[in-house]
This record gives sequence, C-alpha cells and structure tokens, in this order.
Amino acid sequence: MKIVTFGEIMLRLSTPGFSRFSQANNFNATYGGGEANVAMSLSLMGFDAEHVTRFPDNDLGKAATQMLQQYGLSTDHIIYGGDRLGIYFLETGALSRPSKVVYDRAGSSFSSLNPKDFNWDQILKGADWFHFTGISPAISQAAADACHDALDTANEKGIKVSFDVTYRKNLWQYGKTAQQVFPDLAAKSDLLFCSKGDMKEMLSIQSPEGEKFAEVCQRTMALYPRVKQIVNSKRESIAASDNTIWGTIYNGNEQFTSPKHKLFPIVDRIGGGDAFCAGLIYGQLVYKNDEQSINFAVAASALKHSIDGDFNQATVEEIETVMRGDSSGKLTR
Amino acid sequence: MKIVTFGEIMLRLSTPGFSRFSQANNFNATYGGGEANVAMSLSLMGFDAEHVTRFPDNDLGKAATQMLQQYGLSTDHIIYGGDRLGIYFLETGALSRPSKVVYDRAGSSFSSLNPKDFNWDQILKGADWFHFTGISPAISQAAADACHDALDTANEKGIKVSFDVTYRKNLWQYGKTAQQVFPDLAAKSDLLFCSKGDMKEMLSIQSPEGEKFAEVCQRTMALYPRVKQIVNSKRESIAASDNTIWGTIYNGNEQFTSPKHKLFPIVDRIGGGDAFCAGLIYGQLVYKNDEQSINFAVAASALKHSIDGDFNQATVEEIETVMRGDSSGKLTR
Amino acid sequence: MKIVTFGEIMLRLSTPGFSRFSQANNFNATYGGGEANVAMSLSLMGFDAEHVTRFPDNDLGKAATQMLQQYGLSTDHIIYGGDRLGIYFLETGALSRPSKVVYDRAGSSFSSLNPKDFNWDQILKGADWFHFTGISPAISQAAADACHDALDTANEKGIKVSFDVTYRKNLWQYGKTAQQVFPDLAAKSDLLFCSKGDMKEMLSIQSPEGEKFAEVCQRTMALYPRVKQIVNSKRESIAASDNTIWGTIYNGNEQFTSPKHKLFPIVDRIGGGDAFCAGLIYGQLVYKNDEQSINFAVAASALKHSIDGDFNQATVEEIETVMRGDSSGKLTR
Amino acid sequence: MKIVTFGEIMLRLSTPGFSRFSQANNFNATYGGGEANVAMSLSLMGFDAEHVTRFPDNDLGKAATQMLQQYGLSTDHIIYGGDRLGIYFLETGALSRPSKVVYDRAGSSFSSLNPKDFNWDQILKGADWFHFTGISPAISQAAADACHDALDTANEKGIKVSFDVTYRKNLWQYGKTAQQVFPDLAAKSDLLFCSKGDMKEMLSIQSPEGEKFAEVCQRTMALYPRVKQIVNSKRESIAASDNTIWGTIYNGNEQFTSPKHKLFPIVDRIGGGDAFCAGLIYGQLVYKNDEQSINFAVAASALKHSIDGDFNQATVEEIETVMRGDSSGKLTR
Amino acid sequence: MKIVTFGEIMLRLSTPGFSRFSQANNFNATYGGGEANVAMSLSLMGFDAEHVTRFPDNDLGKAATQMLQQYGLSTDHIIYGGDRLGIYFLETGALSRPSKVVYDRAGSSFSSLNPKDFNWDQILKGADWFHFTGISPAISQAAADACHDALDTANEKGIKVSFDVTYRKNLWQYGKTAQQVFPDLAAKSDLLFCSKGDMKEMLSIQSPEGEKFAEVCQRTMALYPRVKQIVNSKRESIAASDNTIWGTIYNGNEQFTSPKHKLFPIVDRIGGGDAFCAGLIYGQLVYKNDEQSINFAVAASALKHSIDGDFNQATVEEIETVMRGDSSGKLTR
Amino acid sequence: MKIVTFGEIMLRLSTPGFSRFSQANNFNATYGGGEANVAMSLSLMGFDAEHVTRFPDNDLGKAATQMLQQYGLSTDHIIYGGDRLGIYFLETGALSRPSKVVYDRAGSSFSSLNPKDFNWDQILKGADWFHFTGISPAISQAAADACHDALDTANEKGIKVSFDVTYRKNLWQYGKTAQQVFPDLAAKSDLLFCSKGDMKEMLSIQSPEGEKFAEVCQRTMALYPRVKQIVNSKRESIAASDNTIWGTIYNGNEQFTSPKHKLFPIVDRIGGGDAFCAGLIYGQLVYKNDEQSINFAVAASALKHSIDGDFNQATVEEIETVMRGDSSGKLTR
Repeated sequence: MKIVTFGEIMLRLSTPGFSRFSQANNFNATYGGGEANVAMSLSLMGFDAEHVTRFPDNDLGKAATQMLQQYGLSTDHIIYGGDRLGIYFLETGALSRPSKVVYDRAGSSFSSLNPKDFNWDQILKGADWFHFTGISPAISQAAADACHDALDTANEKGIKVSFDVTYRKNLWQYGKTAQQVFPDLAAKSDLLFCSKGDMKEMLSIQSPEGEKFAEVCQRTMALYPRVKQIVNSKRESIAASDNTIWGTIYNGNEQFTSPKHKLFPIVDRIGGGDAFCAGLIYGQLVYKNDEQSINFAVAASALKHSIDGDFNQATVEEIETVMRGDSSGKLTR
Repeated sequence: MKIVTFGEIMLRLSTPGFSRFSQANNFNATYGGGEANVAMSLSLMGFDAEHVTRFPDNDLGKAATQMLQQYGLSTDHIIYGGDRLGIYFLETGALSRPSKVVYDRAGSSFSSLNPKDFNWDQILKGADWFHFTGISPAISQAAADACHDALDTANEKGIKVSFDVTYRKNLWQYGKTAQQVFPDLAAKSDLLFCSKGDMKEMLSIQSPEGEKFAEVCQRTMALYPRVKQIVNSKRESIAASDNTIWGTIYNGNEQFTSPKHKLFPIVDRIGGGDAFCAGLIYGQLVYKNDEQSINFAVAASALKHSIDGDFNQATVEEIETVMRGDSSGKLTR
Repeated sequence: MKIVTFGEIMLRLSTPGFSRFSQANNFNATYGGGEANVAMSLSLMGFDAEHVTRFPDNDLGKAATQMLQQYGLSTDHIIYGGDRLGIYFLETGALSRPSKVVYDRAGSSFSSLNPKDFNWDQILKGADWFHFTGISPAISQAAADACHDALDTANEKGIKVSFDVTYRKNLWQYGKTAQQVFPDLAAKSDLLFCSKGDMKEMLSIQSPEGEKFAEVCQRTMALYPRVKQIVNSKRESIAASDNTIWGTIYNGNEQFTSPKHKLFPIVDRIGGGDAFCAGLIYGQLVYKNDEQSINFAVAASALKHSIDGDFNQATVEEIETVMRGDSSGKLTR
Repeated sequence: MKIVTFGEIMLRLSTPGFSRFSQANNFNATYGGGEANVAMSLSLMGFDAEHVTRFPDNDLGKAATQMLQQYGLSTDHIIYGGDRLGIYFLETGALSRPSKVVYDRAGSSFSSLNPKDFNWDQILKGADWFHFTGISPAISQAAADACHDALDTANEKGIKVSFDVTYRKNLWQYGKTAQQVFPDLAAKSDLLFCSKGDMKEMLSIQSPEGEKFAEVCQRTMALYPRVKQIVNSKRESIAASDNTIWGTIYNGNEQFTSPKHKLFPIVDRIGGGDAFCAGLIYGQLVYKNDEQSINFAVAASALKHSIDGDFNQATVEEIETVMRGDSSGKLTR
Repeated sequence: MKIVTFGEIMLRLSTPGFSRFSQANNFNATYGGGEANVAMSLSLMGFDAEHVTRFPDNDLGKAATQMLQQYGLSTDHIIYGGDRLGIYFLETGALSRPSKVVYDRAGSSFSSLNPKDFNWDQILKGADWFHFTGISPAISQAAADACHDALDTANEKGIKVSFDVTYRKNLWQYGKTAQQVFPDLAAKSDLLFCSKGDMKEMLSIQSPEGEKFAEVCQRTMALYPRVKQIVNSKRESIAASDNTIWGTIYNGNEQFTSPKHKLFPIVDRIGGGDAFCAGLIYGQLVYKNDEQSINFAVAASALKHSIDGDFNQATVEEIETVMRGDSSGKLTR
Repeated sequence: MKIVTFGEIMLRLSTPGFSRFSQANNFNATYGGGEANVAMSLSLMGFDAEHVTRFPDNDLGKAATQMLQQYGLSTDHIIYGGDRLGIYFLETGALSRPSKVVYDRAGSSFSSLNPKDFNWDQILKGADWFHFTGISPAISQAAADACHDALDTANEKGIKVSFDVTYRKNLWQYGKTAQQVFPDLAAKSDLLFCSKGDMKEMLSIQSPEGEKFAEVCQRTMALYPRVKQIVNSKRESIAASDNTIWGTIYNGNEQFTSPKHKLFPIVDRIGGGDAFCAGLIYGQLVYKNDEQSINFAVAASALKHSIDGDFNQATVEEIETVMRGDSSGKLTR
C-alpha cells in the first residue's frame, strides 16, 4: 500500500542537551516537517511512502532529500528551486522551562512553489492515502493552491484523504485566514485530525456550550459529508518533560478513547502528534478497526517521545507491545 | 539600577553527563562563583551589574573576564595579578549518588588580593545594591578586609547591602572562625540570607529550643539593627536529581513563605541558591514587595535547576510565568 | 583477600544518549562481562582481584586488558589467541521503549579456548573466593570444561565458590542444555545466585506449586549439600528507566530480605546484577553477616544504576551510606 | 544508465582523530565495502546504481541498508540472513605511523550466503555495467560461486564486467588460492583493474623480466580475449598522510597515463582505490574515451582523499575541475 | 582610541572537521561578519571598538550580541527588529576540494534596516576611525543609505574612513550595481582596501593595459582626492589548506610590499582578509608608519589562518613576533 | 628488566583541536609528567616499569593512578597526601602560532612531599635503571632531597642512573639555582641527557668558544667521572606543526648522530623529549649498542609526534620500522 504526503520540510537545529540558545556553540542538525514525519513513520512501518515538497537546489536541499531516502521514502516528485530551506531552531526545555522553537521559514523554497509544477495525476498514481496538514495552506496562497490541486486529484481517484487541522497562528501572513481556507479543504477530506475547539473555530461549526466531542463531530460530518472519521489527540503537560497523552476517534457511530500514557521523562516531544497521525493511518490500513487504530496511534506517539529527532523510529512490533499494555521497557537481549 | 557584587570566580570543570571522575577524559569548562552568579542573573534580568574580583594575569583570567562580559557584566574594576585561578571539579550525581565537588582553590589570585587595590569609592559610584557572601571572608584575611572596606563604603553611600551567610567549613584556614568574622559583617548589612541555625551558630543569637524562624529573626534584628530583612531558602533532597525547594522572608513585621517547587529531574543544581538571591534582589528592586520577592526568588531558583552551568539564564518573563503557578513547561512555538 | 573470576569479556558499543541503532554515527566503547564486572567492583572496593579470560592477540585484546589494569585487576593469567573479541551493541531505551542488546559474540577467542591452557592450580594460589556465571558453560564445551577444572581446583583448595545461575537461552548452541550442565556445576559451588524458578527449571528441583523461596532453597541444599547460601536479586520494571530492586538471601536457617530501592531515572542498568553479586561477596568477606550482606549487595546494585558502563564504580563508603538508608543524594562539597 | 555491484559491506569503526586503539573511548561508525563504495560514487554522479549483498536480519543490517538508500542506491535485491555483519576497525595514522586496520569479518552473513538466493537474471535486468572485486571470491566458496553466477549472466546479457583484481592475502582461508580462482573470473571480464605484478602472479601471465605494463597487458589480453582494457592505479607513499597517485590505462592499442596528484595532508585514504574504479567506469560510460577516463578516475580518487568515510562524495563538477588541472581549492562563495 | 564598524553579522554554521554538508549531523555555531571581524580584532588588540548593526529581536540576535560583548565590543547602538538573522553555512575543504559557503541571508534584519534608526552623530562621538565594506551597500538600498549617512557624519567630524572595496557579485539584487554605488562611497573615504582590478572595474578608473599598482592608485587618488592610502592584500591558493599571502600599500609617494607568508596547513581561512584590515588599521593608529602597517597587517592575517572562527584572536605580541620574522611556532612554556 | 622513575605528574587539560583558551568550552584531560612519560613508554615496550610520585588523596589522584595502571606501570610506592594535583593547560598551536602551556602547579602534593616517606631501598629492589629529570629538583628543596636519596641508593646498589638535565627557568622558586643543584646530581649519574650549552651553563663546564659537542662531553666526563654517556636531542622548529629532530650520543670514545626526521604535520609534540629518553634507555638495555640506541631513540621520538597525549604509545615493532628508514606510513591491513 502506498501513502503520499505533501508539505514543507525544514532544517531542524537543536541545542545540545538542555543548553539554552545563548549557551550553544553547536547545533544538532536533522530535517523534519509535520507531513514528512508521517511519511517517515509509515515507511519504517513497511509501507511504500512518498513525500512531495520543494527544496532549494543547493547542498542543504540535497542533504534533506538524502535523509528522506535513508528511511526509504520515495523522493521522485520533489521539485528543486527557490531561495532557501526553511529552518527551525529548537531549545529543549526541562522542569518548568518549556522547550522553545524559533522559526526561520520566511521566503522558503516551499512557500514560493508554483502549484503547476506538481503533476498530481502522476504523483498519486497507485496511492491509497494522501495526508496533509493545516500548515501548508497557512504558508502561502501557492501552497494552499497546491493542497487543493492534490485533494481534487485524490478525490477523483478515490484516494483517502486525511487532514491534520493544525492551526499555527503566526504563519497566516498572506492575506487569508484559516477560517477562510480550512473549510474548503475539510470538505475534500475523508478523515480529520481535529479537536472540538478547532471544529468550532476553524471549521465554522455552531455548537452550544457544553456539547461533547461526538456531538460536535456529528455537526461537522453533517456540514462536511465526505468526512467519515474525526480523530483527536490530547496532551496534558505537567512539566516540560512530563506529559500525559491519549486520543479519541469518532466515526459517526461510535467513539473510542485510548488509555492514557504517562510520559516521563520525555526524550523529544517534537513530532509526537505526527507519530500519532501515522499510527492512526497505519491502523486504518492494517487493522481496519477504529478502536485498534486509536490505541495503536497513541502507543506510537508514546514511543516517539522516547526517540530523538522529528519522526518516529519505533517498529510496528514495538508499538504493538506498548499498545497491548506492556510499557515495562524490559531489557531485550 | 546598578548592582555590584564581590567575590572569587573559579574555573568549573565538570565531567560529561553522569561520568565519575575516574571515567572522565574531558571536562566541560565554565566559570562561576556565588557572588558573580548573582550579578550574572541580574544582568540578564536587565540591570546594570558589575562584578569585582581578582584574576591571574593569564589566559584563564582573560577567558573568565570575557565570559562575564558576554552576559553583560561590567568588568572595569577587576584586578589582575597573583598566581592562579581557583578551580573546582564537579561530578554530577544521579539516583542516590550525590554530586561531588573537589575544590582546588588554595593559593588563588583572589585569596592573595591586596584590599588597597580596590577603590570602593569609585567602584560603588552610582550603585544601588551591594551583594557578597560568607565565602569571601572565609578565604583569607585580605579578602575579609576587602569585604569590610566595601561595606563601609556602601554604608556611607547609603547603598543597600545583602549578605549571603554561607558557611563552608573547609575554607576557614587563615586563623579566624566564621563566628569571629560574620557578626561584624552582618552588622553592616541590610538584608541577610540566613537560616535559623546559622543565625544561632554564626551570628551568636541566643534562642531557646523550638523558637520559630520569625522569632529568631527578631532577635537577630535586635542585635543587628541595620538588618531589615532576613531571607531563608530551603531545600529538601529526595535524591540527587530530585529536590523540593521553597523560601521564607521575614521583614520585622510579616513573614511570607513561597509555594514549594518540586524539581525532578534536575539538570544542574549548582548555583540554585545564587539564583534565589538574585531573584530576591530583583524582587526588592522592582516589586518592592516582600511576598512577590520571595515568590519570584524561588521561581528563579527553580528555573536555574533546568539550566546547565553556574548561573541562571532564565528571563524575567520565564520566571514570572512559573511564579504565577504555571510550571507546565508547554512548548513555545 | 583475593578473589578470582573467570568468563568472557566483550567490547561494548553503545549508541550515544538515547539514539537508536539507525541514528548512530558513533558508538561509545568500553569493555565488560558478567564475571569481570564482579572482579572490577571488588577491586575498587579494595580487594586483590584477578580476572581470567582469553583475548585475541590484537589491539582490541590489548585495549581490553589495559582497561582491566586501569581499575587494578590482575591480568597475569589472561591467555592470548583465537580469532576475535566478542562484541555487544547496546541501544539505551527510554519510557516504554526497552534497551536493546545485539550480541555479536560467535567465534570469539573465549569460546574457542583450550581448557588445558589454564593452570588453575597456579591461578588460584592464595585465592579466597572464585566466582563464575552460567554464561561461560553456555558458550562452548571448552568453556564449560574450563569451569569444571576451575571448580575442581577451588574445591580441592577449599576456596569458596559462587555460581551466578544466569540462563541465556540464545547462547546454548553447542549441543548441550543448561539443564544438563548446571547441576554438576552447582554441586561444586558454595553459594548460588539463583531465583526460585531457576532452581526448579535449571537445577531439577521438584517443588510443589506455591512453595516459598526458602522451602525451595532447602530442597536445593538437600540435593546439593555443598551449597550453604542461596541469593536472589529481584527487579520490577515499571519503565525502561524506572525500576525497583531488592534481594533475598537464605542460609539454611534464616532468610533476609533487603529494603526495596526505587531507581528512577536510571543512568545505565547493564551490570546491575553483577554489582549485586560483588556486593554480596564483599558482605560475606567483610561483614560475615548475611543480613548486612544482602543489604550491602542491593545498595551496591542501586548505585550501579547511577553509573555509566558495565561495572560499579561506587566506593564502599558510598554504598554504606545508601545501605544505612540515606539515598538523599545531597551534594558533597 | 544502470550499474550493479556485488560484495560485502562492513561496519567501519574508526578511532576519533589520530587516537590509537588503546586510547579510544568511542568509535565513529559508518558502513563500507570495496564494491559498494564504487556504487555509491556512481549513484552520487547521477547513475542508477544498485548494490547486491547479504546482511544479517538485525538492526545493524537495517542501518547499513539505510545508509545505502541515503545516497540513492537501490537495495531491492539485498538478502537478509546469517549471523553477523562483518566489522573493520580503523586507526588513522600520522607522520611515519601507518593507518591500521583490524578486520573482524569471519563468519559474516556475506561469507555464508547461498548463491542460489541471488536471481541474477532479474537483478541484472536493464543493467549496463557489473563491477566486482577480488575480495568476494576470497571470502568463501559460496561467495566465489555467486561471482561466477553473476558473471555468467552478465556475459549472456552483454553487460560489461569490470573486475578489480585486489589480492588480500589474509582472506583466502577456504582451501583455494587466488591463483586458482582469479583466472576463470578474469576470463569473463571486459575490463580489469590490475597491476603488472598481479597479472603475473594472479593471472598466470608469463612475462620476461623488464617488460613494460603495455606488453604484459598484451599477453593478458591474448590469454583472456574478452578483456579489452586494463587499468592500473598507482600510489607512492611518502608518509601516512602524504601520498602521490596516478593511473594508467591500456586498451590494446594505446596507453594513457594520467598526471600525478600530490595528496597532502590526506583526510581519509580508505576507499581511494574504489573512487578510482568508479571514476574510470564513469569515464567509460560518459566520455567513452580512455584518456579522459583515466584522468577523471585519478581526479576522483584525489578528491576522495579529502573526504571522510569509505566512499567518494565529490560531484562530477568538482572532479572535472580537478581533472582540468585546477587543484587550487579556492573558496567557493 | 575608538573604532566604529558597521555591517551585517551572520550566524555561521560550519560542518565539523572536513565533513561535507551531506555528512553533517551537527554544525559548529559562531557569529561573524566582515566589518564586525575587524572590530573584534581591534578590541582584542586593546582598542575601544564598537560594532553597529541590526539584529532580530529573538534569541539568536541576543546570542550574537553576547558574543560581541564577550570580546569587549560595545553593542550600545545595535538596533533590534526585522525578521531574521542572516546565516551562512560553511564546509571546510581539503586538498583540491575547496571550502564552500552557502549563504542564506535574504530577508535579514540587516537588509531591512531603516537608515533613520541610526543616529550617527551620537554613534560616532569620540570615534577615531570608521570602517565599512562593499558588502553592506550590496545588500539593500537601505543599507547603502546607512553607509552614506555614516560617511557623511564621519567626514564632518574628521573621523578617518576606511572602505574595504569587496565585490560580491551574488549580492547585488536591489536594482543597482556596484559600479553605480561604490564611487560615491569611495569619494568619502580616506583609505581604500582595493585591488588594481577593482579600481578599474568598480571605481571607473581608466588605466592602460600593463600599468602597475602604484600607477593605478595615482589615478584613483586623482579622481578621489580624499583617498590618501590604498592597500591591497594578495592571496595565492595552492590548495584548499595551502595559501601564500602578502600585501601592498601605496600612500601617494611610496609603495611598501610585505614579505610573503606561506600558510600550510590552514586551520580556518575565513576572515583572513578582515584580520588584514584590522592589522592595517592598528598599524595606522599605533605605528603611524605605512611599512610597519602593511607588515603587521599581513602578519595578523597569517595568524588568523591558525585560528578557528571568523575573527582574529591573536594578540599584538603574537603578531609582532611573526612580523619580526619569527614564524617558528616554538612552544611557549 | 625493571626501570624506576621519579617525578611529578600533572593533570593535562588541553583545548580541543586548535582552539585558543578564550574559545574553549571543554578541555581534554589526561595525565603526564616528564619522568612518568618515560616509564609509560618503557612499560609499553615490555619492561617492568614503576613510577614513584606523590598524589593528593582525592578523586584526581586516584584517576591519575588508574591511568598509570592502565598502561601497566607499577604504582605500589606512590604516596598519597598534600593539597592538590598540579595542572597544566595546553593550547595547541598551528602555523606560526606556537603551542602554549599555562602551568598551575604551585602548592602541589609533589612539591610538598616529605623525602622520608620514600623508602628507596625497598623501591629500588631489583631495579636495573633509575631515571629522573631536572624538573624535580627545581620544584622544592624536599623534591631535590628525594632525588639525592634515590641517587645515593641507586649508586649503592649499582643501578644505572640517567639524568635528563632539563632546565625550566620559571620553576626555581625555593631559593636555590640550577647551577647550585645540578652538579651534585650529575655527579651521581651514569648517563646524561644534556646539550652542549647546558653542560656549560648548568654543570660549570669551562669550554672555549667553538668547541664541539664531543669535546665538551670529554670535559664533562672528566669533571663527573661516573658519567659514561652523554646524549643530546635536537629540534629545529620551522613552524608550530613542522619540526625536524635528530640526536647525538657520545660515549667517551665515539659519537653517533642519528638521521634527521622531518615531522609535519605534528599531532602532538608534548612528550617528544621523554619518548626520546625512553627510546635511548631501551636501546641501552636491549641493543647494548650506542649507535642503535640513538637511532631507536630518535625514531621513537618521531613516532611520539604522531600520537595524542603526553606519552609514546608506539610499539617496539613500529619504532624499529621507522628506525630502519621506512617512514612511508603505508596502510597496515
């Protein structure tokens, strides 16, 4: 089975250990992005996975491509051009000091893409699933247009579409708002990753105070009839390295909520949400069962927090062990 | 506003990670000292801050000066001369294994300073606060004399003096005891950082068994009429990286005790007390309110435990977030 | 007093921090092995200790020898020859992701040793204790034979023998089973490190369902009359870096169980069992008291979890502090 | 155009900087092998390249596969099985101290391959070139058999075969000699990488004392009529990091010798010969001109010496700059 | 004496050792820029030095400021605002492989500065020298305007102005050419760092083929009567780490050429030209002698090549030793 | 055969790579000293070697002892006590920038030793050679006295004594001069490492201008009749990492001068002289031939320059390869 994702990839530069930016004399370097992280996870789980993006035609774009290849992603439809690779700087928090991200992504090659450069008909040939997030349509009109093109093609071909309705308020700089843009994208999606609040704020769902998640989902599904499942990941933050996560899925009929996973002390929480999305997609494609899907998704996300870097390098076997309730971490000899 | 501190700065050589001394093939190097740590914190909080000390006239003295400059300290009145920079070696503990410090500070340039080299009248021009600790007068008669000179000038000029009544029993080698030396210094101070026990043992306070902190403070203030506030920081050690801290201030009328902060797992606990002192001074100068001061001081100290190195690189905004009770460490994007 | 141990030593290559194998661009290198770890601990506790093994006659064998020498072990009876040094690769787990060991020890110099090369009469001259584990007899017939030779000589000379009845199911490749080999070795031992389950499975003890540890020990001592003490270390794994350990000793008359030690977050759990054995042997030789022995053994094992690498670099003074119940890890200045 | 290579890949563990084995507390890790290094170079030059080998089915085999993928190699026909990944340890020399390699490759998954597992008909579909070295047939009968199978298929399909006649005397342990095995393999090859001495010693060429390279080549081509080109790379070693390299090609009619390249100070000389082979193959496929081929090959090899790791990460553009005689290394802004 | 410089500072991210971009998993981080490098050198030589620039108001801007402070620069007139800190990525070459710089400076806070934000009258109060380069006016119209403002004020106040006529062809993107912009700036300068070729190409000097440096300088001085000295630094590149440097100064009457300095193997050649400029300015201010100035400048530049990072950390004493012809590098105990 | 050496060992803290002190955020740590370096070399060459010194009774003294043990030295007669371990800081030079040493050894445990603590009769039991340098008698009267005690005992027992007449002018602080102290020590020595100049300046040899080395040696041997050989190592410094070394021995009858060894680029020149002494002693004990001794000594010293750290980790086989004239550094597989 083949999954295609689309979105920006950035160079991630993180300070070593718990160093603050003012203390850093070197940065650890890797590459990541919300959608590519999903593809990476799915590739490592054994699927054919392809990520589509635009990189500058320089040594950093080449290195980013090579990292995708390393983990088995197809990179055949990456476009090269534009000025620069987006960057984000990361400082890892501890105790009550939060991790901190400084974005430096303005003017990136991705933001200045030309939607016509992507031949979705060819890219999506043979694909079973297409995944994107709310970050791409926030970056530029061109990126939003490319999302629409991809969704139209996926809809035509009957490829399932999942939309991670992430809202990053600092991104929307090109004259539109998420409230204007997200509804049309949601209308072309089969599965949403979306909280109750975001359905109300971003997808124009009118819902009386106090309605439960399933009720709001029903309203969303009424307004967006293509949507068949809505999934929500939850995180409670006790301290920078002490979180509890769980998730919920509603499919129009039933709602399933996973067990809670206590995560302490966290190794790296970036990409925890993307690992969740990848796990959910895995569940849909393999288990074809919503309860197992949500449990697998949360177990995958839990394991991601034990792994350095943007994406989840846990195996299906490891995730299923945790999903079955064994989080004892007993030494494997 | 301008704060001046005086005291020894040492080269700190710490083993990497949790390595024991016998395992270390390299040492992380930074510079720190109880008083300079206070000045560093206050500089990073936006004050003019100056540290006064004596360094050897060699590459290590130069490097130490440059680190002070990096964080904005004025270094105009540092004296260069003498034989060597004091050193302390640090091994970071874990679980029930404590962190361990091996001091190598005998014969340092600071210990052999000439009190006459410091023109306090000029150094303290325009200063609002002078801070020192019980370490300097423990090092040598000359260092104790320099403290007296500084205090006399500060008293004349009406500059507030805070004295951190730290007792390090291994230091007192020059023929005097802390009990002989501390009272005269306390008499010239406006604010003491001091525990109940140290008031009794170091400052000759007679107090019946079972008296409370405020009562002992009253006795101290009676004997040392210049002292208007006494502040005490408390630490409970559950394990090497698991501590709880809080603090108390008494101002002659009222006593305020901060909330407790659970710190686990600690990144670096060295300098936690100095961050507390800096926070308290910040509170006095900015909030001019004892309750806020003690809460800010403990929040500052809590954040210091998340930061590597001797001094606190938390910003006022970060400290105030924790002070308001938000220690969730939620990712800042 | 002199202790002799015998067994394989491997090059340990561990990924840095929490990196997965697929992320590692370098490996930390040290050397370790169950029996040598015991000797290392005992050497650092002040005993004469000697480890006997076989290394390849190359730079890695030389480096391994030098590491033993560094910590004071006698290496006079190490044999050089054979093809290669065994290796094990280690990935350190976190949260619910277990640590993982990939063994690469087939064809090692130790496995192809010639038992006749070891002159046990000379090696054990002046020794007070001989310690080995169930790993050596699992590796090859030759290694099993060498164990028998050592035990026969020790028995003749009246040297106390301890046998750590470790069962590693992947090792037994040379045609015999542990059930066939262990009983004869146990019959020549004075002290066993063995769980209730292993007595029943490995040492052919028939015991009705539900019998307690002491009862099974009595049956074992009846069948193996040389055995005077049986010691069991227990570990509960809550997560990869969150374990609780304790231990029990039964001496034919009395059973002593140590307090439980909560270990979180663990620095390195490899060698925790070997540190326990070393601690127990220390207790037998110094305290000559079973209750103190088991308490010291567990305290030693607890401290090992705070130390990187295969063996325990805690001092007797540090262990006794923990053994007395002080696990506060308070900074030592 | 597509190139296929076949051979063992090992984990390379090198000491940091100029450390000796006895000083190393960590090793840099990468993966390499003579044939794969050629494929890596050719992939980075823009060709489709595939490497065929056998890896253990464990985390190290997976990591090695991922490194091949990173640089664009096809890994579709790698077989997983067997016991272990071969390893070589590398200590980098300096001055008159040579670099040192300690091989630990006995019992590797590659050596115990089953020739029947490789479906050469399918593997070589669409290939233009097949490259192998004298290392594979030295490792085991099975590996030698697999080489024969590959060559037979390549000959059938009219795919060009290059054979790097490397002789490693320590490898030949399975009962045959290079003199017995190489001639049959040379008879199935189109291009040989071979020195004058090796033609005489390994390929049974009778040649009077003092004959020149071209004359010996003519005799070789007479005995092995399929061979159309013989290429020889030469290295003069002045010191560990000071070498001079050049090369010669003879095509039956003409001989071309490249300029000499002075290499000092060398960054990493491992894989210099493989970079040469890759460059020569590039030249044959792109320039279709022997003089340009040998000049490009030596320029490629020269650049390899400036690059850390087993394979050449120089681009065609960089190599052509050096090939044109510009080795000034002027900063590129 | 006080020197003021103006120009952009970038985050420099360099691969470790000789790693290529595709091999880098971490980057060494420092900050540098042509003009700031000059100020840093002069500060370390004992002058009051101030650098004026614009930084983003984020953690990277703060860290860059702190690095300037560390080496004693005044940072009082830095403006905070705009979007991002410019970055350049550096790969260090070896042998015939050049070092490579990938710039990522578009949209930087410096490029979008508002010239009105800089109060040059106040900034240049008490200054003796103002230095800038051809990079600033290449970045944006605003930056060019700020240069003019600074020069006008300096001219009014009688402050000496040096202009390093660096031409970076990739920078000129805002609609003007260097040929249009440089002449007006040169007209306001007292000393030019400029080659013969750049005088002809950038400063519109008509000079017959074959004229010597001094002759072209005379023509330049005729056209730009304020210019009293023209200085040229020369570099011959034998290989990436093997250069020879020297310099020439012409003062209208006399020309002095320094000895040649062979630099091999170079540690870091970035900033070699800036160290030269700083050395020349030192010579003008201290020796007030053109022959000594040029010799000191080249010696300073030579030493810079032995030092990692963008700027010269050599002391005056060290430079004078080399200037006197002692380049033996004998150990200093 | 057994060699005993006596002298101070210091913690060596060196900046990484070519970093200056002002750039160093960590230091590489090892231990070394002129005499111990000789013992280390001889131990690695296969001799029984013992080093005698005094260490502080703390973790650094323990770690230093363990490093001696690692390389096989006997540490049985080390005395523990006193205040601190001496330290030296090292910055590695490049090009014309010299390496720089900052000593911090005042008040060390060695300097405050009590000569009576060393039982030379027992220490030197079974020894064949005793080696010391001019550093120890420079440190303190007590250290000088201990040298005399050792020499008297060695003379009594007929043990050969070698004296490396090193003069460090900054050390002589205790009221005596080298000219006062060295003659008596030379009178008790059998072999001197000494230059022509030092014989004249330090050993009171009157020699007319222009006399050759052998002539001055004859005068020295006349004045110090026990001295039978005088050895001189020579170094020409072209640049910090570019030296040429050679050596000369005179035995009363014949003079032998080694070939010159060009060393470029040097890895670490510290300890080059000590490696020379060790090589010379090896030659005397094994070859019993002065010509071979001097050639071996210089080859050993040459190889030391390729090795990081204070002492020579080259094997006899490696040294003999270089001694035979093969310095090609060809890769050893």
